[in-house]
Amino acid sequence: MLIATTLAQIQNALAQTRKQGKTIGFVPTMGALHEGHLSLLRRAKKENHVCILSIFINPTQFGPNEDFTKYPRDKKKDVLLAKKENIDIIFYPSEKIMYPPGYLTYIEVTKLSDVLCGRTRPGHFKGVTTVIAKLLNIVRPQTMYLGEKDAQQCVILKHLVKDLNFATKVIACPTVRETDGLAMSSRNKYLSSTERKEATVLYSSLTLAKNEIKRGLRDAMKIRYLIEQNIRTLSRGEIDYVACVNAENLEPLTEIKGHVLIAVAARWGTTRLIDNVSISVK
Amino acid sequence: MLIATTLAQIQNALAQTRKQGKTIGFVPTMGALHEGHLSLLRRAKKENHVCILSIFINPTQFGPNEDFTKYPRDKKKDVLLAKKENIDIIFYPSEKIMYPPGYLTYIEVTKLSDVLCGRTRPGHFKGVTTVIAKLLNIVRPQTMYLGEKDAQQCVILKHLVKDLNFATKVIACPTVRETDGLAMSSRNKYLSSTERKEATVLYSSLTLAKNEIKRGLRDAMKIRYLIEQNIRTLSRGEIDYVACVNAENLEPLTEIKGHVLIAVAARWGTTRLIDNVSISVK
Repeated sequence: MLIATTLAQIQNALAQTRKQGKTIGFVPTMGALHEGHLSLLRRAKKENHVCILSIFINPTQFGPNEDFTKYPRDKKKDVLLAKKENIDIIFYPSEKIMYPPGYLTYIEVTKLSDVLCGRTRPGHFKGVTTVIAKLLNIVRPQTMYLGEKDAQQCVILKHLVKDLNFATKVIACPTVRETDGLAMSSRNKYLSSTERKEATVLYSSLTLAKNEIKRGLRDAMKIRYLIEQNIRTLSRGEIDYVACVNAENLEPLTEIKGHVLIAVAARWGTTRLIDNVSISVK
Repeated sequence: MLIATTLAQIQNALAQTRKQGKTIGFVPTMGALHEGHLSLLRRAKKENHVCILSIFINPTQFGPNEDFTKYPRDKKKDVLLAKKENIDIIFYPSEKIMYPPGYLTYIEVTKLSDVLCGRTRPGHFKGVTTVIAKLLNIVRPQTMYLGEKDAQQCVILKHLVKDLNFATKVIACPTVRETDGLAMSSRNKYLSSTERKEATVLYSSLTLAKNEIKRGLRDAMKIRYLIEQNIRTLSRGEIDYVACVNAENLEPLTEIKGHVLIAVAARWGTTRLIDNVSISVK
């Protein structure tokens, strides 16, 4: 396994790969790898000749009061996990490699970046789209694998790739959950044991809502109310948003119809968690 | 010569080229080809196995009161000229191919896009960087050739390519001029015969300034004043700006020192012309 830290290292390695006509599967991460990331790596490995993992805690996607400095970093453990999965290359650049002095360029997927998490985290998705465009140009993978837990990120990055004509296919993979249903996230580490227990309310509320839809409920306001009430009753989590939106364009729905994304964000103390489910309704 | 109008056509043709290990030289244009464009095509042809010309009048780089609708279009003549130069592929997409319904993504090279022409044409360079990023992803050339007449555009696009890690080298080529010194431009067609004669004042003033620098003048304000006075005395051109800036970061200079760009923009009626010279001073 190669750990490439410079552009020359990753580009030389990939030039070889391309010359040999091998396909590249790419999993971009911020490290602190968990089973969710590993599921992406396994799929990338299975579907491509070569699997590349990038680990870069991207400063431009954190707001001034967010958790950039305390975001979990554990290079040793991440490298070990990647080795176990037989990953071919880890791209592990420094901030100076990704944003050298004099850096000036930013990419925005308008509209989609302003709703849901974008409303609470202004500039967040601009940072995400910028760094992913850079990584796509560096790695030039056939396929990029993302986790559905970050549903809005998946929608935005699919749009980015289509709008800017990147020669990469984006595949969103199912959220991996703890046995009690909590979506795996590097940020779960921030939770106290009480908060950790309470946080299961996100997925249980989403499941409750999904079941109501399966039973015939079509009023989006009622669905949202159900989720909000459930979270408020069963936890001290502070709700950021509960939304029922079109899963492709993220536009809010009044009636549950088509491919629907039900997404939620809530805070326990300073820890902000997100989760979502989707359902197709005729 | 292939004239590709769809993404599939250009991508299939280029997939072949890449498989054969051939290098691609790329010249992006808005058509209305003149000797300036042809000089770029000749260099691209000479330095690469395959030469691609794109012709696309990019709506996102025109302001609401600019000349998008009347911009010269002459497909037949452009195709003929390209054939004469033995160009391999013309990419000639429609607006719908480049900006399909639901298009949302824009790229900005901050700071550099706000000065000089960017001040008079807000949003112009955002349109340029966006369309060039798209074209670079579609064509994926080893080298892109640009004309130095659009000096600010060259600086911005070099920055775009570096910041976003495109695997393309950008080469700026010398401005091609009419025998009386006027820089070749598709917009010269708009000029009346009187305006056409007067417009030579741009280059003659820049040359005058350059000669003064060669003779030892180092005061940027005096250089700018000299150019302004010359244009005002010899023509009815309305000056948009006369600037002495650092040629790499476009920052204004008080002292002529280093790699200096002297740039000018002026209007004759609704026709806006630009020109520039550069000089290296120890």
